[in-house]
Amino acid sequence: VSHVVVSKAEGAVYRLSELEPSLRARSLASITGKDPRHVEAILREAERVLRVRGEVIITETRHGLVCANSGVDLSNVGEDRAAALPRDPDLSAQAIRRGIEEATGRKVAVIIADSHGRPFRRGAVNVAIGCSGIQPIWDRRGERDLYGRVLRSKQICVADELASAAELVMGQADEGVPVAIIRGYRYTPGEEGASSIIRPRGENLFL
Amino acid sequence: VSHVVVSKAEGAVYRLSELEPSLRARSLASITGKDPRHVEAILREAERVLRVRGEVIITETRHGLVCANSGVDLSNVGEDRAAALPRDPDLSAQAIRRGIEEATGRKVAVIIADSHGRPFRRGAVNVAIGCSGIQPIWDRRGERDLYGRVLRSKQICVADELASAAELVMGQADEGVPVAIIRGYRYTPGEEGASSIIRPRGENLFL
Repeated sequence: VSHVVVSKAEGAVYRLSELEPSLRARSLASITGKDPRHVEAILREAERVLRVRGEVIITETRHGLVCANSGVDLSNVGEDRAAALPRDPDLSAQAIRRGIEEATGRKVAVIIADSHGRPFRRGAVNVAIGCSGIQPIWDRRGERDLYGRVLRSKQICVADELASAAELVMGQADEGVPVAIIRGYRYTPGEEGASSIIRPRGENLFL
Repeated sequence: VSHVVVSKAEGAVYRLSELEPSLRARSLASITGKDPRHVEAILREAERVLRVRGEVIITETRHGLVCANSGVDLSNVGEDRAAALPRDPDLSAQAIRRGIEEATGRKVAVIIADSHGRPFRRGAVNVAIGCSGIQPIWDRRGERDLYGRVLRSKQICVADELASAAELVMGQADEGVPVAIIRGYRYTPGEEGASSIIRPRGENLFL
Protein backbone atom coordinates (compact mmCIF):
# COMPACT_ATOMS: atom_id res chain seq x y z
CA VAL A 1 0.00 0.00 0.00
CA SER A 2 1.35 3.41 -0.96
CA HIS A 3 1.92 5.54 2.13
CA VAL A 4 0.23 8.57 0.55
CA VAL A 5 -3.18 6.94 0.45
CA VAL A 6 -2.76 5.89 4.10
CA SER A 7 -1.62 9.36 5.17
CA LYS A 8 -4.62 10.89 3.42
CA ALA A 9 -7.03 8.46 5.06
CA GLU A 10 -5.51 9.14 8.48
CA GLY A 11 -5.37 12.90 8.04
CA ALA A 12 -1.57 13.03 8.18
CA VAL A 13 -1.69 15.88 5.68
CA TYR A 14 -0.53 19.46 6.19
CA ARG A 15 -2.26 22.45 4.65
CA LEU A 16 0.67 24.53 3.54
CA SER A 17 -1.26 27.81 3.86
CA GLU A 18 -1.85 27.10 7.55
CA LEU A 19 1.83 26.56 8.36
CA GLU A 20 3.78 29.41 9.93
CA PRO A 21 7.42 28.83 8.91
CA SER A 22 9.87 29.19 11.78
CA LEU A 23 13.09 31.17 11.42
CA ARG A 24 14.96 27.89 10.90
CA ALA A 25 12.50 26.76 8.23
CA ARG A 26 12.86 30.05 6.38
CA SER A 27 16.63 29.84 6.57
CA LEU A 28 16.70 26.25 5.25
CA ALA A 29 14.18 27.24 2.57
CA SER A 30 16.41 30.02 1.30
CA ILE A 31 19.41 27.65 1.19
CA THR A 32 17.55 24.91 -0.66
CA GLY A 33 15.10 26.91 -2.76
CA LYS A 34 12.16 25.01 -1.26
CA ASP A 35 8.83 26.48 -0.18
CA PRO A 36 9.35 27.65 3.47
CA ARG A 37 6.03 26.05 4.44
CA HIS A 38 7.16 22.72 2.98
CA VAL A 39 10.37 23.03 5.00
CA GLU A 40 8.32 23.82 8.11
CA ALA A 41 6.42 20.54 7.63
CA ILE A 42 9.72 18.70 7.04
CA LEU A 43 11.14 20.06 10.31
CA ARG A 44 8.02 19.19 12.28
CA GLU A 45 8.33 15.58 11.10
CA ALA A 46 12.08 15.43 11.76
CA GLU A 47 13.89 14.15 14.81
CA ARG A 48 17.05 15.76 13.44
CA VAL A 49 18.39 17.23 10.22
CA LEU A 50 21.32 15.13 8.95
CA ARG A 51 22.46 16.67 5.67
CA VAL A 52 21.63 19.71 3.54
CA ARG A 53 23.06 20.06 0.05
CA GLY A 54 21.65 21.71 -3.07
CA GLU A 55 17.90 21.36 -2.76
CA VAL A 56 18.17 18.16 -0.72
CA ILE A 57 17.32 17.98 2.99
CA ILE A 58 18.03 14.58 4.57
CA THR A 59 16.51 14.04 7.99
CA GLU A 60 15.91 11.33 10.50
CA THR A 61 12.15 11.22 11.00
CA ARG A 62 10.44 10.72 14.32
CA HIS A 63 10.11 7.05 13.31
CA GLY A 64 13.90 6.82 12.91
CA LEU A 65 13.77 6.62 9.10
CA VAL A 66 16.61 8.35 7.27
CA CYS A 67 15.16 9.93 4.14
CA ALA A 68 14.76 13.09 2.09
CA ASN A 69 12.30 15.74 3.34
CA SER A 70 11.24 13.62 6.35
CA GLY A 71 9.10 11.79 3.78
CA VAL A 72 6.84 14.86 3.45
CA ASP A 73 5.52 14.59 -0.08
CA LEU A 74 3.92 17.22 -2.30
CA SER A 75 2.94 14.67 -4.97
CA ASN A 76 -0.54 13.25 -5.31
CA VAL A 77 -2.09 15.19 -2.43
CA GLY A 78 -3.43 18.20 -4.30
CA GLU A 79 -2.72 21.91 -4.18
CA ASP A 80 -1.76 23.53 -0.87
CA ARG A 81 -1.21 20.12 0.70
CA ALA A 82 1.72 18.01 1.85
CA ALA A 83 1.40 14.40 2.96
CA ALA A 84 3.52 13.36 5.93
CA LEU A 85 4.26 9.72 6.67
CA PRO A 86 1.62 7.95 8.77
CA ARG A 87 2.25 8.53 12.49
CA ASP A 88 2.73 4.81 13.24
CA PRO A 89 2.98 2.93 9.93
CA ASP A 90 3.11 -0.50 11.62
CA LEU A 91 -0.16 0.27 13.40
CA SER A 92 -1.67 1.51 10.13
CA ALA A 93 -0.62 -1.74 8.43
CA GLN A 94 -2.18 -3.72 11.26
CA ALA A 95 -5.48 -1.83 10.94
CA ILE A 96 -5.61 -2.40 7.17
CA ARG A 97 -4.78 -6.06 7.67
CA ARG A 98 -7.55 -6.51 10.26
CA GLY A 99 -9.98 -4.77 7.91
CA ILE A 100 -9.11 -7.04 4.99
CA GLU A 101 -9.20 -10.16 7.14
CA GLU A 102 -12.60 -9.24 8.58
CA ALA A 103 -14.03 -8.36 5.18
CA THR A 104 -12.70 -11.42 3.34
CA GLY A 105 -11.95 -14.08 5.95
CA ARG A 106 -8.51 -14.49 4.36
CA LYS A 107 -5.18 -14.25 6.10
CA VAL A 108 -3.01 -11.56 4.55
CA ALA A 109 0.07 -9.56 5.34
CA VAL A 110 0.14 -5.81 4.67
CA ILE A 111 3.12 -3.64 3.78
CA ILE A 112 3.00 0.17 3.64
CA ALA A 113 5.64 1.48 1.27
CA ASP A 114 7.37 4.71 0.38
CA SER A 115 10.13 5.40 -2.12
CA HIS A 116 13.37 6.43 -0.42
CA GLY A 117 16.71 7.50 -1.80
CA ARG A 118 19.87 5.64 -0.87
CA PRO A 119 23.10 7.24 0.31
CA PHE A 120 25.41 5.38 -2.09
CA ARG A 121 23.11 4.70 -5.03
CA ARG A 122 21.21 7.00 -7.35
CA GLY A 123 17.44 6.77 -7.74
CA ALA A 124 14.90 5.87 -5.11
CA VAL A 125 13.38 2.45 -4.45
CA ASN A 126 10.26 1.50 -2.56
CA VAL A 127 10.88 0.29 0.98
CA ALA A 128 8.59 -1.00 3.73
CA ILE A 129 7.89 1.75 6.27
CA GLY A 130 5.16 -0.29 7.96
CA CYS A 131 4.08 -3.91 7.93
CA SER A 132 1.84 -6.38 9.71
CA GLY A 133 1.59 -10.16 9.51
CA ILE A 134 4.97 -10.76 7.86
CA GLN A 135 8.41 -11.14 9.35
CA PRO A 136 10.19 -8.30 7.55
CA ILE A 137 13.68 -9.77 7.70
CA TRP A 138 14.32 -13.36 6.73
CA ASP A 139 17.21 -14.56 8.83
CA ARG A 140 18.86 -17.38 6.91
CA ARG A 141 21.92 -17.71 9.13
CA GLY A 142 22.46 -21.33 10.04
CA GLU A 143 21.00 -22.62 6.77
CA ARG A 144 23.28 -24.36 4.29
CA ASP A 145 24.28 -23.46 0.76
CA LEU A 146 24.39 -25.82 -2.24
CA TYR A 147 27.74 -27.17 -1.03
CA GLY A 148 26.60 -27.72 2.55
CA ARG A 149 28.42 -24.67 3.90
CA VAL A 150 26.57 -23.01 6.80
CA LEU A 151 25.55 -19.42 6.01
CA ARG A 152 26.97 -16.97 8.52
CA SER A 153 25.61 -13.62 7.50
CA LYS A 154 22.57 -13.92 5.27
CA GLN A 155 19.69 -11.78 6.42
CA ILE A 156 17.39 -10.63 3.65
CA CYS A 157 14.92 -7.79 4.07
CA VAL A 158 12.07 -9.42 2.16
CA ALA A 159 9.62 -6.69 3.21
CA ASP A 160 11.70 -4.11 1.34
CA GLU A 161 12.06 -6.44 -1.65
CA LEU A 162 8.29 -6.97 -1.75
CA ALA A 163 7.76 -3.19 -1.53
CA SER A 164 10.20 -2.70 -4.42
CA ALA A 165 8.47 -5.38 -6.50
CA ALA A 166 5.13 -3.65 -5.89
CA GLU A 167 6.45 -0.26 -7.03
CA LEU A 168 7.04 -1.70 -10.50
CA VAL A 169 3.28 -2.02 -11.00
CA MET A 170 2.16 0.92 -8.83
CA GLY A 171 4.25 3.83 -10.08
CA GLN A 172 4.66 7.27 -8.57
CA ALA A 173 3.12 9.77 -10.97
CA ASP A 174 -0.42 9.73 -12.39
CA GLU A 175 -0.97 5.96 -12.44
CA GLY A 176 -3.54 6.16 -9.64
CA VAL A 177 -2.61 2.67 -8.38
CA PRO A 178 -2.13 2.98 -4.61
CA VAL A 179 -2.24 -0.75 -3.83
CA ALA A 180 -0.67 -3.86 -5.33
CA ILE A 181 -1.68 -7.41 -4.47
CA ILE A 182 1.20 -9.89 -4.30
CA ARG A 183 0.23 -13.53 -4.63
CA GLY A 184 2.23 -16.73 -4.38
CA TYR A 185 5.10 -15.53 -2.21
CA ARG A 186 5.66 -17.79 0.80
CA TYR A 187 6.50 -15.45 3.65
CA THR A 188 7.13 -16.14 7.30
CA PRO A 189 4.26 -14.76 9.42
CA GLY A 190 5.35 -12.40 12.16
CA GLU A 191 4.29 -9.41 14.23
CA GLU A 192 7.57 -7.52 14.41
CA GLY A 193 6.68 -4.58 12.20
CA ALA A 194 8.85 -2.59 9.82
CA SER A 195 10.23 -0.44 12.64
CA SER A 196 12.51 -3.41 13.34
CA ILE A 197 14.16 -2.85 9.94
CA ILE A 198 15.55 0.51 11.05
CA ARG A 199 19.16 0.12 12.07
CA PRO A 200 19.59 1.31 15.66
CA ARG A 201 21.96 4.27 16.01
CA GLY A 202 24.60 2.15 17.71
CA GLU A 203 24.71 -0.22 14.72
CA ASN A 204 24.86 2.60 12.21
CA LEU A 205 28.36 2.93 10.74
CA PHE A 206 27.67 5.92 8.50
CA LEU A 207 26.14 8.56 10.80
CA VAL B 1 21.07 -13.35 -12.90
CA SER B 2 22.84 -14.07 -9.63
CA HIS B 3 26.37 -12.66 -9.68
CA VAL B 4 27.85 -15.88 -8.26
CA VAL B 5 27.00 -17.94 -11.32
CA VAL B 6 28.50 -15.22 -13.54
CA SER B 7 31.66 -14.98 -11.43
CA LYS B 8 32.06 -18.75 -11.60
CA ALA B 9 31.61 -18.80 -15.37
CA GLU B 10 34.14 -15.98 -15.78
CA GLY B 11 36.66 -17.45 -13.36
CA ALA B 12 36.36 -14.55 -10.91
CA VAL B 13 36.89 -17.03 -8.10
CA TYR B 14 39.77 -17.13 -5.61
CA ARG B 15 41.25 -20.34 -4.28
CA LEU B 16 41.71 -19.48 -0.63
CA SER B 17 44.63 -21.90 -0.22
CA GLU B 18 46.56 -20.04 -2.92
CA LEU B 19 46.20 -16.63 -1.26
CA GLU B 20 49.10 -15.27 0.78
CA PRO B 21 47.54 -12.91 3.32
CA SER B 22 49.35 -9.59 3.63
CA LEU B 23 50.18 -8.05 7.00
CA ARG B 24 47.15 -5.79 6.64
CA ALA B 25 44.89 -8.74 5.80
CA ARG B 26 46.13 -10.65 8.85
CA SER B 27 45.60 -7.64 11.07
CA LEU B 28 42.04 -7.07 9.79
CA ALA B 29 41.38 -10.79 10.11
CA SER B 30 42.35 -10.81 13.76
CA ILE B 31 40.12 -7.78 14.45
CA THR B 32 37.10 -9.25 12.66
CA GLY B 33 37.56 -12.96 13.29
CA LYS B 34 37.50 -13.67 9.57
CA ASP B 35 39.73 -16.08 7.66
CA PRO B 36 42.89 -14.07 6.75
CA ARG B 37 42.75 -15.47 3.21
CA HIS B 38 39.15 -14.26 2.84
CA VAL B 39 40.28 -10.83 4.04
CA GLU B 40 43.15 -10.92 1.53
CA ALA B 41 40.61 -11.47 -1.27
CA ILE B 42 38.43 -8.67 0.14
CA LEU B 43 41.38 -6.25 0.12
CA ARG B 44 42.41 -7.21 -3.42
CA GLU B 45 38.89 -6.36 -4.61
CA ALA B 46 38.72 -3.12 -2.62
CA GLU B 47 39.48 0.40 -3.76
CA ARG B 48 39.41 1.45 -0.11
CA VAL B 49 38.26 0.15 3.26
CA LEU B 50 35.49 2.37 4.64
CA ARG B 51 34.38 0.87 7.94
CA VAL B 52 35.39 -2.01 10.20
CA ARG B 53 33.23 -2.99 13.14
CA GLY B 54 32.62 -6.36 14.78
CA GLU B 55 33.04 -8.90 12.00
CA VAL B 56 31.92 -6.44 9.33
CA ILE B 57 34.29 -4.95 6.75
CA ILE B 58 32.67 -2.33 4.49
CA THR B 59 34.68 -1.39 1.43
CA GLU B 60 34.33 0.51 -1.77
CA THR B 61 35.05 -2.00 -4.53
CA ARG B 62 37.06 -1.27 -7.65
CA HIS B 63 33.68 -0.79 -9.38
CA GLY B 64 32.75 1.91 -6.85
CA LEU B 65 30.16 -0.23 -5.07
CA VAL B 66 29.92 0.28 -1.31
CA CYS B 67 29.26 -3.11 0.26
CA ALA B 68 30.38 -5.65 2.84
CA ASN B 69 33.48 -7.74 2.07
CA SER B 70 33.97 -6.13 -1.37
CA GLY B 71 31.20 -8.53 -2.42
CA VAL B 72 33.59 -11.49 -1.99
CA ASP B 73 31.28 -14.37 -1.16
CA LEU B 74 32.04 -17.73 0.43
CA SER B 75 28.53 -19.07 -0.24
CA ASN B 76 27.68 -21.38 -3.11
CA VAL B 77 31.20 -21.61 -4.53
CA GLY B 78 32.42 -24.72 -2.74
CA GLU B 79 35.19 -25.41 -0.27
CA ASP B 80 38.43 -23.42 -0.48
CA ARG B 81 36.81 -20.93 -2.84
CA ALA B 82 35.58 -17.34 -2.71
CA ALA B 83 33.63 -15.70 -5.51
CA ALA B 84 34.49 -12.09 -6.27
CA LEU B 85 32.15 -9.84 -8.21
CA PRO B 86 32.52 -10.02 -12.00
CA ARG B 87 35.27 -7.68 -13.19
CA ASP B 88 32.91 -5.60 -15.36
CA PRO B 89 29.32 -6.60 -14.54
CA ASP B 90 27.81 -4.35 -17.24
CA LEU B 91 29.95 -6.10 -19.85
CA SER B 92 28.97 -9.49 -18.42
CA ALA B 93 25.30 -8.51 -18.67
CA GLN B 94 25.84 -7.42 -22.26
CA ALA B 95 27.47 -10.74 -23.16
CA ILE B 96 24.63 -12.74 -21.60
CA ARG B 97 22.09 -10.56 -23.38
CA ARG B 98 23.77 -11.04 -26.77
CA GLY B 99 23.88 -14.79 -26.13
CA ILE B 100 20.18 -14.96 -25.31
CA GLU B 101 19.23 -12.74 -28.25
CA GLU B 102 21.30 -14.82 -30.66
CA ALA B 103 19.94 -18.10 -29.33
CA THR B 104 16.29 -17.05 -29.22
CA GLY B 105 15.89 -14.08 -31.57
CA ARG B 106 14.09 -12.25 -28.76
CA LYS B 107 14.97 -8.85 -27.39
CA VAL B 108 15.71 -9.04 -23.68
CA ALA B 109 17.33 -6.97 -20.97
CA VAL B 110 19.70 -8.61 -18.50
CA ILE B 111 20.38 -7.62 -14.88
CA ILE B 112 23.17 -9.12 -12.78
CA ALA B 113 22.29 -8.91 -9.10
CA ASP B 114 23.92 -9.23 -5.72
CA SER B 115 22.47 -8.79 -2.24
CA HIS B 116 23.93 -5.77 -0.47
CA GLY B 117 23.40 -4.39 3.00
CA ARG B 118 22.20 -0.84 3.53
CA PRO B 119 23.75 1.68 5.89
CA PHE B 120 20.52 2.74 7.58
CA ARG B 121 18.39 -0.41 7.26
CA ARG B 122 18.89 -3.93 8.54
CA GLY B 123 18.94 -6.90 6.17
CA ALA B 124 20.29 -7.04 2.64
CA VAL B 125 18.33 -6.62 -0.58
CA ASN B 126 19.23 -7.58 -4.11
CA VAL B 127 20.52 -4.72 -6.23
CA ALA B 128 21.63 -4.46 -9.86
CA ILE B 129 25.43 -4.53 -10.10
CA GLY B 130 25.34 -4.93 -13.88
CA CYS B 131 22.74 -4.49 -16.59
CA SER B 132 22.32 -4.32 -20.33
CA GLY B 133 19.38 -3.29 -22.50
CA ILE B 134 17.43 -1.46 -19.79
CA GLN B 135 17.66 2.11 -18.57
CA PRO B 136 18.41 1.43 -14.89
CA ILE B 137 16.95 4.66 -13.53
CA TRP B 138 13.54 5.86 -14.61
CA ASP B 139 13.62 9.63 -14.50
CA ARG B 140 10.07 10.80 -14.00
CA ARG B 141 10.87 14.45 -13.38
CA GLY B 142 8.64 16.63 -15.52
CA GLU B 143 5.74 14.16 -15.48
CA ARG B 144 2.55 15.11 -13.68
CA ASP B 145 0.83 13.59 -10.67
CA LEU B 146 -2.90 12.82 -10.36
CA TYR B 147 -3.56 16.50 -9.59
CA GLY B 148 -1.51 17.81 -12.50
CA ARG B 149 1.41 18.88 -10.33
CA VAL B 150 4.77 18.52 -12.10
CA LEU B 151 7.09 16.04 -10.35
CA ARG B 152 10.37 17.66 -9.38
CA SER B 153 12.41 14.89 -7.85
CA LYS B 154 11.12 11.45 -8.82
CA GLN B 155 13.85 9.18 -10.11
CA ILE B 156 13.21 5.50 -9.51
CA CYS B 157 15.93 2.87 -9.73
CA VAL B 158 13.83 0.24 -11.49
CA ALA B 159 16.89 -1.98 -12.09
CA ASP B 160 17.35 -2.36 -8.33
CA GLU B 161 13.62 -2.93 -7.85
CA LEU B 162 13.65 -5.65 -10.53
CA ALA B 163 16.70 -7.25 -8.88
CA SER B 164 14.89 -7.21 -5.52
CA ALA B 165 11.75 -8.71 -7.05
CA ALA B 166 13.88 -11.50 -8.55
CA GLU B 167 15.52 -12.31 -5.22
CA LEU B 168 12.13 -13.31 -3.83
CA VAL B 169 12.04 -16.31 -6.19
CA MET B 170 15.79 -16.97 -6.39
CA GLY B 171 16.89 -17.12 -2.77
CA GLN B 172 20.40 -17.17 -1.35
CA ALA B 173 20.93 -20.55 0.30
CA ASP B 174 20.43 -23.98 -1.29
CA GLU B 175 17.65 -23.11 -3.73
CA GLY B 176 19.95 -23.53 -6.73
CA VAL B 177 18.02 -20.92 -8.73
CA PRO B 178 20.62 -18.56 -10.22
CA VAL B 179 18.33 -16.91 -12.78
CA ALA B 180 14.82 -15.47 -12.70
CA ILE B 181 12.84 -14.51 -15.79
CA ILE B 182 10.70 -11.37 -15.39
CA ARG B 183 7.89 -11.02 -17.89
CA GLY B 184 5.39 -8.25 -18.51
CA TYR B 185 7.32 -5.31 -17.11
CA ARG B 186 7.49 -2.41 -19.57
CA TYR B 187 10.98 -1.00 -19.23
CA THR B 188 12.75 1.74 -21.11
CA PRO B 189 15.51 0.29 -23.31
CA GLY B 190 18.93 1.80 -22.71
CA GLU B 191 22.65 1.11 -22.80
CA GLU B 192 23.75 3.02 -19.72
CA GLY B 193 24.66 0.08 -17.51
CA ALA B 194 24.35 -0.30 -13.75
CA SER B 195 27.61 1.55 -13.13
CA SER B 196 25.53 4.71 -13.68
CA ILE B 197 23.54 3.85 -10.52
CA ILE B 198 26.60 4.33 -8.34
CA ARG B 199 26.51 7.76 -6.76
CA PRO B 200 29.67 9.67 -7.67
CA ARG B 201 31.80 10.62 -4.68
CA GLY B 202 30.97 14.30 -5.03
CA GLU B 203 27.23 13.55 -4.73
CA ASN B 204 27.72 11.28 -1.76
CA LEU B 205 26.58 12.98 1.46
CA PHE B 206 27.47 10.17 3.85
CA LEU B 207 31.12 9.37 3.12
